[in-house]
Amino acid sequence: MHDKELEEGSSLNPRFDANGLISAIVADEATGEVLMLAHMNEEALKRTIETREGWFWSRSRKSLWKKGESSGNVLRVSEMKVDCDQDAVLLKVSVTGDGKSCHTGRRSCFYRAIPLGGGNTALTFD
Amino acid sequence: MHDKELEEGSSLNPRFDANGLISAIVADEATGEVLMLAHMNEEALKRTIETREGWFWSRSRKSLWKKGESSGNVLRVSEMKVDCDQDAVLLKVSVTGDGKSCHTGRRSCFYRAIPLGGGNTALTFD
Repeated sequence: MHDKELEEGSSLNPRFDANGLISAIVADEATGEVLMLAHMNEEALKRTIETREGWFWSRSRKSLWKKGESSGNVLRVSEMKVDCDQDAVLLKVSVTGDGKSCHTGRRSCFYRAIPLGGGNTALTFD
Repeated sequence: MHDKELEEGSSLNPRFDANGLISAIVADEATGEVLMLAHMNEEALKRTIETREGWFWSRSRKSLWKKGESSGNVLRVSEMKVDCDQDAVLLKVSVTGDGKSCHTGRRSCFYRAIPLGGGNTALTFD
């Protein structure tokens, strides 16, 4: 079931899904805080590796997208990792501009907590 | 283009994709280290919220899956967050057993670095 070369090899062989995408987790290089989750097609992956800045594929707009093009919050990539089955990457970044990576004006896109245990279902804000 | 209620509301309204899935990032509650990326369907999300243990949907096996069922490395969830557009969640966990969340026997699934800048393409292992 598991592919040894995929998992233990030193070749990058991204397993793009049916839509040609892999997942990209973006975390702050200094604190490790997870900032956002986005998607990359082959071209976005290539550009990110080559330019060390975060490029993605927008599923809603169906277009290639450089983070920060309009907001100024470019992602400077210092480290990039691939996971065992090569369908996800992890980017360690510093965010330029005001350091806010979420388009809502927050530092991280993960600003609401889901109550655990069932019962109460209202999200709580950071 | 952005949905105010989705982003600023206190209701959990996960935006499952065409396959009925959202992305789930798993990070260590103590260190913040990203351990793995998996997917959740509605039932996996419900079970994770109710039981505070990590349940997922396996895209390869096409089945519901409780992390640690066979390995013993159950994910105890202390915090769960949803992102701005509600198509991803972030789980802060402690991993039971030997603390290794990757099926390859490593702590994290992200154990190989992608060289940046182009040119050399060989992945380097942690």
